[in-house]
Amino acid sequence: LEAEDIAEVRSLTGDLHEGDLADLLELLKPEERDQLITQLGHEFNPAALSELDEGVRDQLLATLPAEVVADALQQLDTDDAVYLLEDLAEEDRNAILDQLPRLDQLTLKKSLEYPEDSAGRIMRTEVISVPPFWSVGQTIDFMRESEDLPDRFDEIFVVDPAFHLIGSVALNRLLRSKRHVNIEDITDHDLRPIQAESDQEDVAREFERYNLSSAPVVDQDNRLIGVITADDVVEVVQEEAEEDILRLAGVSSNTGMSDSVWGTTRQRFAWLLVNLATAILASYVISLFDATIEQMVALAVLMPIVASMGGNAGTQTMTVAVRALATRDLGRVNAFRVIGRETAVGLLNGLLFAILMALVTYFWFGRTDLGVIIALAMIVNLVVAGLAGILVPLGLNELGVDPAITSGVFVTTVTDVVGFFAFLGLAALWLL
Amino acid sequence: LEAEDIAEVRSLTGDLHEGDLADLLELLKPEERDQLITQLGHEFNPAALSELDEGVRDQLLATLPAEVVADALQQLDTDDAVYLLEDLAEEDRNAILDQLPRLDQLTLKKSLEYPEDSAGRIMRTEVISVPPFWSVGQTIDFMRESEDLPDRFDEIFVVDPAFHLIGSVALNRLLRSKRHVNIEDITDHDLRPIQAESDQEDVAREFERYNLSSAPVVDQDNRLIGVITADDVVEVVQEEAEEDILRLAGVSSNTGMSDSVWGTTRQRFAWLLVNLATAILASYVISLFDATIEQMVALAVLMPIVASMGGNAGTQTMTVAVRALATRDLGRVNAFRVIGRETAVGLLNGLLFAILMALVTYFWFGRTDLGVIIALAMIVNLVVAGLAGILVPLGLNELGVDPAITSGVFVTTVTDVVGFFAFLGLAALWLL
Repeated sequence: LEAEDIAEVRSLTGDLHEGDLADLLELLKPEERDQLITQLGHEFNPAALSELDEGVRDQLLATLPAEVVADALQQLDTDDAVYLLEDLAEEDRNAILDQLPRLDQLTLKKSLEYPEDSAGRIMRTEVISVPPFWSVGQTIDFMRESEDLPDRFDEIFVVDPAFHLIGSVALNRLLRSKRHVNIEDITDHDLRPIQAESDQEDVAREFERYNLSSAPVVDQDNRLIGVITADDVVEVVQEEAEEDILRLAGVSSNTGMSDSVWGTTRQRFAWLLVNLATAILASYVISLFDATIEQMVALAVLMPIVASMGGNAGTQTMTVAVRALATRDLGRVNAFRVIGRETAVGLLNGLLFAILMALVTYFWFGRTDLGVIIALAMIVNLVVAGLAGILVPLGLNELGVDPAITSGVFVTTVTDVVGFFAFLGLAALWLL
Repeated sequence: LEAEDIAEVRSLTGDLHEGDLADLLELLKPEERDQLITQLGHEFNPAALSELDEGVRDQLLATLPAEVVADALQQLDTDDAVYLLEDLAEEDRNAILDQLPRLDQLTLKKSLEYPEDSAGRIMRTEVISVPPFWSVGQTIDFMRESEDLPDRFDEIFVVDPAFHLIGSVALNRLLRSKRHVNIEDITDHDLRPIQAESDQEDVAREFERYNLSSAPVVDQDNRLIGVITADDVVEVVQEEAEEDILRLAGVSSNTGMSDSVWGTTRQRFAWLLVNLATAILASYVISLFDATIEQMVALAVLMPIVASMGGNAGTQTMTVAVRALATRDLGRVNAFRVIGRETAVGLLNGLLFAILMALVTYFWFGRTDLGVIIALAMIVNLVVAGLAGILVPLGLNELGVDPAITSGVFVTTVTDVVGFFAFLGLAALWLL
């Protein structure tokens, strides 16, 4: 690459699939990436751009000349092109759009008008639609003669003259019908059209729930404007699940393996700062009992156990609840039953660990009273952990806040505070 | 339902989609579920069975008569049928299989022989394959005349006489070609066949990486045995991400909102028990310094802050690392770079929080020495947290253990022990 041996570079990368080419680009240094793409010229497969990590992609799109990017965009389907453009700064985006032919420019601008993470952004606008009165033969001839068809399509849509969606015909259905049959007669009307404004999470849920392999996208007037296919949904599901996992751990979702040290530090700092505030709150609770601890240091030794068990039990319940909310397995219908069950589970595990810890404490410190106190505190904290684990996500969800981001802080704050307060408070009452 | 008003029940549920019918079944009591299915008889849509939560599904399949289940299975594609059968006890499964016609029995048994979570289990065996020397016309006529075709297919495969996979033809390609063209000439040879034994996670990664909408499944001899489509992969991705999220929180992955109290308690108990052991270990570290704490209770008040910050920082790094390992963004190639970056991030955040905590401590307790000690302990623990957060998942992964299940325990044990030890140890050395 450094020797600018174009022929060599081309022969090495020529046969790579877009996914592999993207990985190669990620491993290179920033300058080398531009170099590689420039050297490849027209042999560069633009599809690789949409496979890149967000950080690398934005860097590349910002440094590559607008003509090169515009050229790449024209070779892509609209959904991939929109995906590349959506995170760019306004001016960069416009510079690239200006290089495109008028029609492509309009299509992309239209798609970019839909809200982020909406169906309108992930749909492909290249669809084939025919009127219901055509025959199978006419339709097939139309497809044979058209030049500007999508790369791959598995169904065609049936629309009225105003482009209102009537139904769909799977290609296999079309193939198996005689040429003289009317499209109308083989149209499947059992469609689940998606509104262009719907959130991509809802789209994914729809696909999963109804095992769809594709779904038409319509505007408010039920006019066909695009199609979403299951392979796009695979990426959405992956992305959304990733986001939830990282959010639960307090990591912002656009962290990648190729981010800078300073960027990563900043992202993590915010969450750790929130955690510091809650930790100080818990410490304040401890400080209320400093006289008690002074008289019996064993309390300081044992108190983290109660808090930590509560934190873990609360996190278990909370994680299940957050996922169930995300997949709509938990809602108002069954909320009360689930709250009851979590309380019961907390009570049962509280009893089990109360017995265990009472025994451990007795054998460690040789004191029955300390064992009874830690047992009682354990029961209280595990029941509270179960309740907090379910009520916090439910409450945040009702308030319209994403429970994946914020539940963790609240739940562990509750279990820490209650854990320390119950254990030290009982000790202060009983022992002194 | 209770009044056994069959006509009424049928009219209410008749138009429901399988996904909605499954939700309805989940909301009913166990006895009512059997009743509903029996009353619906042949109007019951068997596809609803494969949409049920695991707990409910297994209960239903165990209590429904084998003939009813067998009848339902025959109406399903092989992948859904296998999905229903795979979790059943050997005897229940055989009772159901015995009710099936010989050919279906063999196909299902064959699929069940593939390992759990493998491509062989999620593939559909109904595929259309033609020899390369057929013409487009012949192929279309063949499809028009065959009765026993899959419900929906978007491509056909080209095979040699021994069923070795040669290539594929997308239906739109077939439709757009003239009848006299040879299949050979429109065959796409750029396939990514999947081995039947591959893990479903690898299948999902392949689909995501190469944006596949379907992929052929082959046996060791490259003979075509089935096909996997993107809509099946949507479920796999969802399932695997779910599993990772729950495992990170120490919840076994087959917990649903409809499980029993006792079952849930047992599942959570195991993880909490492990946590108890590590909490006791941390307490033991504290007990080493009980004399120090006795002389300065402020140490007991402040020590949970150091441990908790370390635990959170470690969990952040660990979650990113576990996900990166799962998506293969982290591997041996970039391990060293990532380890270096996480150490640097830990050091930077350690410095920031050291300054913050030193100030808080100074204003709270009015002591500079205590502030310096907590600052030093914070730096040590956040660097260790960053290192543990990346090294533990990497190490477990090298050992072939799923890092999602076990990393959490190790990381928080390390940060708790190091946190308490660094803070109390420094205090013991300096203050007394």
